[in-house]
Amino acid sequence: MSATLPESILRAPTPPAWTAAAAARMPELLVDHANCEKKAASSAMALIFAYPEDTALVLALARLAREELRHFEQVHRAMRELAIPVVRQRPGRYAQELRRAARTTHPERKLDLLLIAALIEARSAERFGLLAEHLPVPLAALYVQLAHAEARHFELYLDFARERAPAVWRGRLDELAAREALLATAPDRELRFHSGPPPVN
Amino acid sequence: MSATLPESILRAPTPPAWTAAAAARMPELLVDHANCEKKAASSAMALIFAYPEDTALVLALARLAREELRHFEQVHRAMRELAIPVVRQRPGRYAQELRRAARTTHPERKLDLLLIAALIEARSAERFGLLAEHLPVPLAALYVQLAHAEARHFELYLDFARERAPAVWRGRLDELAAREALLATAPDRELRFHSGPPPVN
Repeated sequence: MSATLPESILRAPTPPAWTAAAAARMPELLVDHANCEKKAASSAMALIFAYPEDTALVLALARLAREELRHFEQVHRAMRELAIPVVRQRPGRYAQELRRAARTTHPERKLDLLLIAALIEARSAERFGLLAEHLPVPLAALYVQLAHAEARHFELYLDFARERAPAVWRGRLDELAAREALLATAPDRELRFHSGPPPVN
Repeated sequence: MSATLPESILRAPTPPAWTAAAAARMPELLVDHANCEKKAASSAMALIFAYPEDTALVLALARLAREELRHFEQVHRAMRELAIPVVRQRPGRYAQELRRAARTTHPERKLDLLLIAALIEARSAERFGLLAEHLPVPLAALYVQLAHAEARHFELYLDFARERAPAVWRGRLDELAAREALLATAPDRELRFHSGPPPVN
């Protein structure tokens, strides 16, 4: 496994205004974070169902989904310790808008879903690292651990994208990464784990 | 945790004709078995998404989903060792027909989904035990292990059903168990892990 940094596929760093707002509103962010972990498991499962014949991918994603579920449990426990209740939140624009960019034709869709997953994991790794610097100790330790795990996941998705579509992955990554960078940096009405920073006004 | 036997909620034992046919067609059955494990993980995830406020349930099901994913990986490895290729199969009638019985109103739906999951796990545990007696050693050992795991899962689902609907779970279980027993014992065109026995002709 290479030692690629998540930043290497992200086209723009997270704006400091996002980090400041998120650190100031951690209870709300943790609820969204728990949702992100379960959605990450669910997206991996969706790929397992979509591409059953790709055994290497399927087995790697089963392990990855197990790890995301364990993260989900860890975040839930952290919330319980901090007495943060589970509340339903409107989903943010990020994942939905990003997934909308996936083509519906075969085999283009598979490449797009792998690249989109790689971008989401890379952004997660970057933001866990940023938040860890602003959090009290028990949460900070969890976030450092998660930053490493999501960096491994980002590489896993990227490696499969490279292997499954060696001729075209890089060009397509450029397009999707541009869209991702916009979603993660443009002012956003909802503050979420993958949102843009709050609007200035 | 109580020591309830899966048989205690199943209204009819698996017919010997199913066991004989399944043991004779294990490669085909293993493909379906792998699918069942991933569907079990996916059904647990669906409950996690549907009832996020029920923290105790959500955490128990995240662990259960992880275990089902691990089973999925184990069955996949067994298939690889036996050189059994992954092929797409038409889904059987069992899970689909059983889930169709779940009411769509709240809170009835939650009870029904818990009881249906309990019945599926109980039937799985029973059949893993039956097949283990007919399989060569490495697979037999896996199936004995899985029989124990699915028996724990059946109890887990049943315990939540009891706790969440103490007044009505038993009556509803009777209705759903009758339907389950019919699906698992009536002659079935497709031989599957949860199917009825082949038609006699």
